[in-house]
Amino acid sequence: MAVKALVFDLDGTLADSTYQHVVAWQRAFKRGGIEVAALEIHRRIGMDGDLMLQALDRAFALGLDARKRAALKAGHAEAFSTMRDDVRLFPKAETIGATLQSLGISWAIVTSGTKDDVGGLLQQLNVESAGAVITGEDQKESKPSGHPIAQAFEALGVKPHDAGVVGDSVWDMLASREAGSFGIGVLTGGYAREELASSGAFRVYRDVAEFLTRLEEVGIQSKT
Amino acid sequence: MAVKALVFDLDGTLADSTYQHVVAWQRAFKRGGIEVAALEIHRRIGMDGDLMLQALDRAFALGLDARKRAALKAGHAEAFSTMRDDVRLFPKAETIGATLQSLGISWAIVTSGTKDDVGGLLQQLNVESAGAVITGEDQKESKPSGHPIAQAFEALGVKPHDAGVVGDSVWDMLASREAGSFGIGVLTGGYAREELASSGAFRVYRDVAEFLTRLEEVGIQSKT
Repeated sequence: MAVKALVFDLDGTLADSTYQHVVAWQRAFKRGGIEVAALEIHRRIGMDGDLMLQALDRAFALGLDARKRAALKAGHAEAFSTMRDDVRLFPKAETIGATLQSLGISWAIVTSGTKDDVGGLLQQLNVESAGAVITGEDQKESKPSGHPIAQAFEALGVKPHDAGVVGDSVWDMLASREAGSFGIGVLTGGYAREELASSGAFRVYRDVAEFLTRLEEVGIQSKT
Repeated sequence: MAVKALVFDLDGTLADSTYQHVVAWQRAFKRGGIEVAALEIHRRIGMDGDLMLQALDRAFALGLDARKRAALKAGHAEAFSTMRDDVRLFPKAETIGATLQSLGISWAIVTSGTKDDVGGLLQQLNVESAGAVITGEDQKESKPSGHPIAQAFEALGVKPHDAGVVGDSVWDMLASREAGSFGIGVLTGGYAREELASSGAFRVYRDVAEFLTRLEEVGIQSKT
């Protein structure tokens, strides 16, 4: 009994993009004449855009109809494009494939981001060795649903209880649980250790670089 | 025995500016060829710029000399100027003066921000009734030193143990303790409830609007 596969979230986990997304969404809201605190956006990042808007609308009765939602998504895309150059991978993220391959562990990426949003990051990530890369377009339901995680497990040919999900948000932890797996938290998205732990993270690491030095702690064993 | 005065932090507490500052600092670092994760900047916002750079340098051995520090501060100022329009006050922040005045409670603002940075926000805040507004230029030491808080208490003519400090960051809580006062946390800067509580916050509120509906909980009594 050992962990055979890992599924990684992208934004906030492998790429330092959370804060730019928050500022871009807030700018879109402001231009739409809607005031939403940055914190409220931040703590809903990691859902896909539609679900985040639905959640904010429910929480603050923003009166978002289809036209407004479309305008907000376009506004976010436009604002984010001015900040895309600020986004980079976290240290060691590009080594995940080689490290896991050497241990015989399969891996995948599951992101709510669209191919347009994350294409450049995926190129930098050396995803050739990944068994699956599931972006927003590939998903019927997005995190915190467990569905896209389950899709990844199926593509990897592993059972949920033989795999872990690495993410920075409570939505990743919730999705991992729903998929029958377990969550591993990283702090790089701005959630606190306690928030991740109380939403079910089995362990919480500072960043993916630290996690890669602690793989045994989550049940990964090298095949020697 | 009742609380007679409140000192408020500005960025992240009365104004929704934390995320813009994080993105602006990160852009300045990137242009200086230095990689620092947004989270590491975020959790040090609330110190003044010099102290934050010193703290990041100590943590990550960035090799910042005086020339680089000056360039980073200029880079931050330039990047932040492109986001200043996105910044707004939190709901009800502009009513603090009237509310506290009606209760006979004196108040002040203590911010590490410079007059240039925060002048526009102060104008919107109706600070005429504030007993003191202490900006970065007025301070020999900045938060988390208790010194600027003590300056405010002196200006207000209150003893530290008769006053509270409202802020969004662990640095506000630390400064309030050092000044002999007590801290009241708000979540709007992106710190989690547990982080504020474990750094000494007596109570933690969602935002300043919620706090204004709960003043009795921190020992404020209306003079009837």
